[in-house]
Amino acid sequence: MRIIVAGGDGFCGWPTALYLSEKGHEVTIVDNMARRGIDEELGTNSLTPIADLSERVQQWKAISGLEIKCFEGDLTDYGFVREVFETVHPESFVHFAEQRSAPYSMMDRDHAVYTQTNNVVGNLNVLYAIKEVTPECHLIKLGTMGEYGTPNIDIEEGYIRIQHNGREDVLPYPKQPVSFYHLSKVHDSHNIMFACRVWGIRATDLNQGVVYGLHTDQTRRHPSLVNRLDYDGVFGTALNRFCIQAAIGHPITVYGRGGQTRGWLDIRDTVRCIELAANHPADFGEFRVFNQFTEEFSVLDLAKRVENVAKEMGLNPKIEHIANPRVEKEEHYYKAAHTRLLDLGLEPHYLSDELLAEVIRTALDHPERVIKEKVLPKVSWR
Amino acid sequence: MRIIVAGGDGFCGWPTALYLSEKGHEVTIVDNMARRGIDEELGTNSLTPIADLSERVQQWKAISGLEIKCFEGDLTDYGFVREVFETVHPESFVHFAEQRSAPYSMMDRDHAVYTQTNNVVGNLNVLYAIKEVTPECHLIKLGTMGEYGTPNIDIEEGYIRIQHNGREDVLPYPKQPVSFYHLSKVHDSHNIMFACRVWGIRATDLNQGVVYGLHTDQTRRHPSLVNRLDYDGVFGTALNRFCIQAAIGHPITVYGRGGQTRGWLDIRDTVRCIELAANHPADFGEFRVFNQFTEEFSVLDLAKRVENVAKEMGLNPKIEHIANPRVEKEEHYYKAAHTRLLDLGLEPHYLSDELLAEVIRTALDHPERVIKEKVLPKVSWR
Repeated sequence: MRIIVAGGDGFCGWPTALYLSEKGHEVTIVDNMARRGIDEELGTNSLTPIADLSERVQQWKAISGLEIKCFEGDLTDYGFVREVFETVHPESFVHFAEQRSAPYSMMDRDHAVYTQTNNVVGNLNVLYAIKEVTPECHLIKLGTMGEYGTPNIDIEEGYIRIQHNGREDVLPYPKQPVSFYHLSKVHDSHNIMFACRVWGIRATDLNQGVVYGLHTDQTRRHPSLVNRLDYDGVFGTALNRFCIQAAIGHPITVYGRGGQTRGWLDIRDTVRCIELAANHPADFGEFRVFNQFTEEFSVLDLAKRVENVAKEMGLNPKIEHIANPRVEKEEHYYKAAHTRLLDLGLEPHYLSDELLAEVIRTALDHPERVIKEKVLPKVSWR
Repeated sequence: MRIIVAGGDGFCGWPTALYLSEKGHEVTIVDNMARRGIDEELGTNSLTPIADLSERVQQWKAISGLEIKCFEGDLTDYGFVREVFETVHPESFVHFAEQRSAPYSMMDRDHAVYTQTNNVVGNLNVLYAIKEVTPECHLIKLGTMGEYGTPNIDIEEGYIRIQHNGREDVLPYPKQPVSFYHLSKVHDSHNIMFACRVWGIRATDLNQGVVYGLHTDQTRRHPSLVNRLDYDGVFGTALNRFCIQAAIGHPITVYGRGGQTRGWLDIRDTVRCIELAANHPADFGEFRVFNQFTEEFSVLDLAKRVENVAKEMGLNPKIEHIANPRVEKEEHYYKAAHTRLLDLGLEPHYLSDELLAEVIRTALDHPERVIKEKVLPKVSWR
């Protein structure tokens, strides 16, 4: 299958591109290198030393014999987007190419506006390119579980049957997103739903949980293929950050009481979910929504898991509750459906102590790369 | 009260500015003149000859003794927005300043992207200016009933109590907007809801129905104060367009079967709703939603009303069903709550034959201004 992986140089996009390539798909990466640029802006880095995209794909070809084409450019530039579609004629377009940090979107007005315009306009351009160039192309769009917020009822996969005043309908699940970043994904979802209905486009919206882990079978095959690992207060996500904090002797920082419960998944499941969606496309005109995670954990549960593993490794971890920079409930009901990808054949990698130990070991391998003053959160929601 | 009317040169904004001024409020208009620019872009015009904004406010001062200050500039320019807030220190900010035509947003990619970036970024800037300059300012934001679409259950005012799997919660009402324009309003609503929750901002979202009529007590007082009247296929809305079509001997064009039911209100009620919202502000941290319309009609019902009135005036109107350029249900359930503005004291002007006759007469007064080839819709949703 001809598949474009937009954002294919990023934390989820790169291992996805490799996985799909190894599975025999004709993979094209589109990326504007924004994530690497933000590292420079924020004075941060990936804990793992990551190679340039051109070196990455050359190394992949040397090892696997498989070619991944690359286009460097910006999805907000419609001329570029059209050119890519006209050249590749994709059967699936996997869309990771959005600003994906909630704290980054909350830094100030400029970053909020950048996040929303970058994400919304890029996604609109993809919708128009599908309509105008390859109407049969299946859009596989990365959304987030954070679109739903934490309602006091069960979260369903995209839609909910509502009975009201003696009538009923199945309607889009109400959204209560928790940052300007999460809001941008809600905007995208509404735009895509409309395009499916009006133009007959086919799309799958993957409301992904928090991704942890680092390696896949493919990224392990050479140091130049290693995936990025974010540990800083802006782009690092909870579980990976906890491992790194334990490794470098920094307190494991839990925001508030740590009762915030979310859906989580292993990066190795991210890449498989994408292929499952691509191999079983939505119908024409269908806006299909999957909740893409495998387990629910509270933040404090995860901190304790990391603490135990680190102790067994001879480290001296310490959990510290710090003031929550976000505005969110620290104790709440949370139960979210996530059966549709399992129905398509997903076999989850559940969270294991081995994986936590591996992330901790990766951090221990690169102590010189950690910029300690970037570890704590500095962006407040207020 | 110090009130900013953003978009105060437009069809709803101008009569609102005059009404609030006459009611003793200290009114400031902010406008970027985009609507007049779009007339040039599309080769259309207001059926009524409208004066420049500077002439309008001078004439208002000459007649009423009341001053309306004006700032010409763009809400997407945050430097400008901050300057306005720092100069005026508004107690209420009435936000009409968005691209408001659904067909315009559906013309092509450029117009879709313009509509969403203009509306979303302008509104984000207003939210940040309130947060940073005047946190006590009450945002009165114009949304649209079109945010809801046509669900098969009753539409409520912004929120709905949902019982699901033995639990319940009150959640944002699900949105199924019907164009890239309507989508931009949904994006705004989500952004504002978030800002209220996180920053403690106070906001009222007015989901307005289709506005008809032309004159208010204030705009009647001098020809230079007359309101604009759109009859073209892009900016004209159904009822006013039907009146003008009847006046100029053009068929009254009903899209499809005409069973599309919507909420409607008189422009004289628009201006009163705004004052009611301003006089009874939302609480700090509250995202309050009112459905702002007074009656429900199907498109065909209205065409017949206009046909009857035109006949009584000696005209020879003819209803013509044309292919619907939009993607929408032509027969559907529709029942929408709209009690909250009534509870605050709104006394509706219900649709009358006198009003229809007056709009028809206005068109008869300016036959030379009608550009006939602009009357029919040319923008398709598909």
